[in-house]
Amino acid sequence: MLKYRAGLKNLPTYDVGEADWKIKLNANEFNMNLPAVVEDRVMGRLSRLAFNRYPGIEVESLKEQLAAAYNVQMDNILIANGSSEILEKVFFCLGGRNRKIVYPQPSFSMYKIYADLSGSISVPFDLNDDYTLDAEKFVDTVNINKAHLAVICAPNNPTGTAVPLRDIEYIAQNINCAFIVDEAYVEFADESAMQILSKYPHMIVARTFSKAYGLAAARVGYAIADSKVTTMLGKVFMPYHVNSLSAAVADIVYQMRHEYESRISMIKAERQRVNDELVKIAGVKVYPSKTNFILIKYDRAQQLNEYLYNIGIGVRSFGNAPRLDNCIRITIGLREENDAWIKAVRDFIVNN
Amino acid sequence: MLKYRAGLKNLPTYDVGEADWKIKLNANEFNMNLPAVVEDRVMGRLSRLAFNRYPGIEVESLKEQLAAAYNVQMDNILIANGSSEILEKVFFCLGGRNRKIVYPQPSFSMYKIYADLSGSISVPFDLNDDYTLDAEKFVDTVNINKAHLAVICAPNNPTGTAVPLRDIEYIAQNINCAFIVDEAYVEFADESAMQILSKYPHMIVARTFSKAYGLAAARVGYAIADSKVTTMLGKVFMPYHVNSLSAAVADIVYQMRHEYESRISMIKAERQRVNDELVKIAGVKVYPSKTNFILIKYDRAQQLNEYLYNIGIGVRSFGNAPRLDNCIRITIGLREENDAWIKAVRDFIVNN
Repeated sequence: MLKYRAGLKNLPTYDVGEADWKIKLNANEFNMNLPAVVEDRVMGRLSRLAFNRYPGIEVESLKEQLAAAYNVQMDNILIANGSSEILEKVFFCLGGRNRKIVYPQPSFSMYKIYADLSGSISVPFDLNDDYTLDAEKFVDTVNINKAHLAVICAPNNPTGTAVPLRDIEYIAQNINCAFIVDEAYVEFADESAMQILSKYPHMIVARTFSKAYGLAAARVGYAIADSKVTTMLGKVFMPYHVNSLSAAVADIVYQMRHEYESRISMIKAERQRVNDELVKIAGVKVYPSKTNFILIKYDRAQQLNEYLYNIGIGVRSFGNAPRLDNCIRITIGLREENDAWIKAVRDFIVNN
Repeated sequence: MLKYRAGLKNLPTYDVGEADWKIKLNANEFNMNLPAVVEDRVMGRLSRLAFNRYPGIEVESLKEQLAAAYNVQMDNILIANGSSEILEKVFFCLGGRNRKIVYPQPSFSMYKIYADLSGSISVPFDLNDDYTLDAEKFVDTVNINKAHLAVICAPNNPTGTAVPLRDIEYIAQNINCAFIVDEAYVEFADESAMQILSKYPHMIVARTFSKAYGLAAARVGYAIADSKVTTMLGKVFMPYHVNSLSAAVADIVYQMRHEYESRISMIKAERQRVNDELVKIAGVKVYPSKTNFILIKYDRAQQLNEYLYNIGIGVRSFGNAPRLDNCIRITIGLREENDAWIKAVRDFIVNN
């Protein structure tokens, strides 16, 4: 019997539970592939790639571009395998034995896993009943617990809830520990912590290409922070942890990011339309969203989820997850996809 | 001041120190890009990739193919971001506070970093003066220290030294802790631990596409082990940690691996030729290699390294690394590249 690290046995195996969906709305992906003009440039770049060389210039080029766009230095930026790797390493670097990490609940389910993996003590902070975050209480929780890391997800996954910038700044001003703002969905929102980052050297903003830029396959995310922070975090990333192919693709996508503006506007318009349709359905509670998905609550959520499953529509049901009972998260898809699932929800409710 | 995990400040930042080389022989890359027939299929596959979807089928397809090739089950295989990520996670899962990890010295410099990152106690095991591994002494060291993990690199990097399969099996038979065999360079050797893996459920074999398959840019490696081991290791890999692009490319490369046989044979033939040329040079000690690189020892190694640097030839000099003083590791390149650096070594020695 091998003797594994303490606590490892109790860690769950992350099961994504995919099926062969007709309409896939369970992972907050963008339901269109690369825009044609982007695809041309991507394939051109990949065809010239030195597959035999360890990563280097592609990652540097992306970093340079991000630095210029955010008006920061290259050493303020870390590129990673999705914002997942950023989160994992931030939890690892700030966490550890007898160290507390405060994160919202309900929120991204991996925060607990990253806290466990880093050997830290999880301090889940309860969001309000409407899933808004009480910034004063959050600050108190962080300070009373003498936390080493505070985490927020803004806007929040899986509830879609905005965290106003004034609240983020209030938190930044009133805590001394490291403070990471997970902005995986920020491109669909109105405000970003980037607007205040330069004032707060204990703050880290994490972003991803997986959502608004439709690059989930490539797994590219990044962190922006003070160079003292990125230097420390950089020590725990493996050499060459980001592959050249993904970095090259993200580099081109970011160069051509204006091509994504109309797509993002479309998702935001669809989100509004979906919201307006859903609120008309009796028995369905709809949470306002600033992301590319929408959370609903319905008292027969499990049966609704099964019904959608059986007709090939993949959504994310939360079963008995803490404070998400009877909740279903649905990605905002293309117009016809949204029409199809809203109709399916209506059909189910009428017939049951 | 943020309070980082204990020990983090003392960790070095991995510095690859690249320059704009005319001849690049410092990273054990394969000095040719994809074979043309492979490139065609790779580009075709990438052009059909769903960039907007989280990874799934590409990774599964690669896993399926590896399982079939090694005559194991899919759940015996873990795909990762290079064998680096396999090593990092194995060290993490088996290591921890007050746990000892035994690894050879000199060997892959990251073993110490992975041990440090995992919070474990490093027990470097000295190789013999000719860099061979004394299997009996290794077993004694593992057992006396009650190690939780034993590591060997076979053949060994950066010395090129073979570890005979009978020695690997002797170790497997005489230790009870987890035992990882890092086979990054095995395709250039004569034997593999895969031949005995099924007999030893505490053994893990780690491999990579970065060397013999010339895919360093893609960062794909894998582990083969008992399913109880892969299940535990699997818990600490992030969801979607391997991106689709890299997995798709590795999948095609592995399907077409016969295309690489002549390349590997060429490197082995060049290695012999390089060896035979080097032994003729007075003052240069050459270590027999079973890898795609060769280690030499020369009493003015630092000056030789500077000379090579100045004429644009990148090699790996070990400075004052433990037991590698005055050693330089040179990747076996293409015939004309090898001719060029051997001539440069000769020129330097004649003129100094």
